[in-house]
Amino acid sequence: MARVVYVNGRYLPWGYAQVHAEDRGFQFGDAVYEVCEVRNGRLIDETRHMDRLERSLGELKIPKPMSRGAWARVMRETIRRNRVTDGSIYLQISRGARQREFIFSDANLEPTVVVLSRPVNKVRRDAAAQGIAVKSMPDIRWGRCDIKTVMLLPASLAKEAAKEIGGKEAWLVDEKGYVTEGASSNAWIIDKAGKLVTRPANNEILRGITRTTLIDLLKKEGIELVERAFTIEEAKAARECFITSATSIVTPVVKIDDTPIGNGAPGITASRLRELFHTVAEIAAR
Amino acid sequence: MARVVYVNGRYLPWGYAQVHAEDRGFQFGDAVYEVCEVRNGRLIDETRHMDRLERSLGELKIPKPMSRGAWARVMRETIRRNRVTDGSIYLQISRGARQREFIFSDANLEPTVVVLSRPVNKVRRDAAAQGIAVKSMPDIRWGRCDIKTVMLLPASLAKEAAKEIGGKEAWLVDEKGYVTEGASSNAWIIDKAGKLVTRPANNEILRGITRTTLIDLLKKEGIELVERAFTIEEAKAARECFITSATSIVTPVVKIDDTPIGNGAPGITASRLRELFHTVAEIAAR
Repeated sequence: MARVVYVNGRYLPWGYAQVHAEDRGFQFGDAVYEVCEVRNGRLIDETRHMDRLERSLGELKIPKPMSRGAWARVMRETIRRNRVTDGSIYLQISRGARQREFIFSDANLEPTVVVLSRPVNKVRRDAAAQGIAVKSMPDIRWGRCDIKTVMLLPASLAKEAAKEIGGKEAWLVDEKGYVTEGASSNAWIIDKAGKLVTRPANNEILRGITRTTLIDLLKKEGIELVERAFTIEEAKAARECFITSATSIVTPVVKIDDTPIGNGAPGITASRLRELFHTVAEIAAR
Repeated sequence: MARVVYVNGRYLPWGYAQVHAEDRGFQFGDAVYEVCEVRNGRLIDETRHMDRLERSLGELKIPKPMSRGAWARVMRETIRRNRVTDGSIYLQISRGARQREFIFSDANLEPTVVVLSRPVNKVRRDAAAQGIAVKSMPDIRWGRCDIKTVMLLPASLAKEAAKEIGGKEAWLVDEKGYVTEGASSNAWIIDKAGKLVTRPANNEILRGITRTTLIDLLKKEGIELVERAFTIEEAKAARECFITSATSIVTPVVKIDDTPIGNGAPGITASRLRELFHTVAEIAAR
C-alpha cells in the first residue's frame, strides 16, 4: 500500500492524508488526474502524461499548481518514499476548497494536489497478461470524456458489473452499438480482414498515453492502423481484441460477454505489442 | 459561513473539516447528497428528502450510514451549532475511503458523512424572486441524473457559462432540442395555451422534492399540470417560465438567452406559487 501521500506540499502518512470536506473534487467531481507507470523505479512516458495533465487543467480553467520541474521532484520523491520499483503513480488536482457553490470563477481558489504511488500486484498483472474477459455495457458517461476528470462513477459501476461475471474490464457501447472505449482503457481489435482498428480520439474518449505510444510502436513495426469506430458485434467476431492503459500496458481480451475471441487464447499480436511496448516508451531518469 | 461541520460523528470547526484524500467521493464522484431548506429554524420537507436520500444510496448500493432518528438529530444539531434560522442544510454521503480501485464490492467500506448548514443570502434571495436570466446549454451529463450524486462538474460548468452572460441558472437541452432540467433545479413553463408544463421525472432528470411538493400545491389550487417534455424554443415563447429547487423554492425566469419571457417581468403564477409554497410543504419540528 501507499505509505506516504503527498498532499498540498506535505508528505503525510496514509492515515493522515486528508483534503477539505468542501473540496470541489469531493462536492462536484471538479478534479483531474493522471496515472503513470513506474518501471524499474523510472517513470514511463512522463512527458506525455504531463502534457495531457496540462491540457485537462486548461480545459477546466484550473490553474497549474506547480511547474514541470516541481512535478518531477514531487513524483520522484513520492516514489522514493513509498519504495516503489514497479507500480504506478497517481496525481490528482482539484480546483480547491471553498464554501459549496456551483460557480467557481468568483473565488480565488488554490488547487488541491494529491500524489501517491503504489507497487503493482505482480500476481494480478501476470494473470492479466494471459488474457481478460470483458463485459459490454451502455456508455452512460458525460460528454467530455476527453478530459481526464474524476467523473468516474459510471466507469466504476461498469467495472463492478463486469466483475460480477468474472470480467476485468467493461467495454462501453454508444447508442448506435459502437464501442467507445474501456471503463479505464482504450479498446482495440484486429478485425476479420486482419486490420488493427481503434476508435479515433475525439470528445467521446480519452486520448490514452499508452494508446499514443503504441501508435509509435506500430509505425516502427510497420503495422498499419485504421482509426475508426467498431461495433461490439464486430469486436466479438474479431481475430484479436486488447486494451491499453498505463497500468494494463497492452492486455489481451479473450472473451467479451459470453463470446470467446478468436480461439479464446491471448492474441499473438497483442502479446507481441505488450513485449515490445517499452522499447518505444519514454523512460525517464530516476 | 458554516462554522461547524459534522464529519463522521464529530462536529469540527470549518478549517478542520476533512475527509480522506482517497475518499471515493474525491477520486470517483462516488457520493450522493441532499440539500434541504431551513426556514424559521425548521427543516422543510425533511421526510421526502430523507426518502430520496435512501433511494440514492440504494441505487448505488451504498449502505445507510445511520438511522432516520440519527439523521434527524445530526441535522438539528448542525443547524443549532451554526445558528441557522433561514438557510439550508447539506448532507453528503460517499462510499468511503480506500486505496484507489474502481471496484468497491470487494472491500468493507464505511460511508463518509458530511453535514453542514448555512444561512441564506437574503439580498440574493430577494433579488432572485424578482426573476432570473437563464442560459440554454447542451445537456452533456451522464445517464443517471435521477440519482442525486456529486457528478456535478457539467452542472457547475453550465452555471459558470450562464454567469458569464449574467444568468443565474442554465437550462440543459437534450440532442432533440428538449429541455431536460436546470443545472440545479427543475424547469417549468406556462405554454402559449396557458397550460403549466414540466418534464416527466425519468432517468434523465432528478425528481425534485420542491417539484413534488409543488405538484401537491397545484392539486390543492386546482391548477392542471401537463407532464411532457418541451423545447427551448417553446420555453422562449412561453407566457411564463420558472425553476424549482430547495434553495430557489419557486423562482421566475424572465429571460432565456437573449429572449425576454412574456413581458420580461416575473410571471403572476410563478410569484403566486412561490408565496403559497410553504402552505403545503412539510414543516418539521425543531
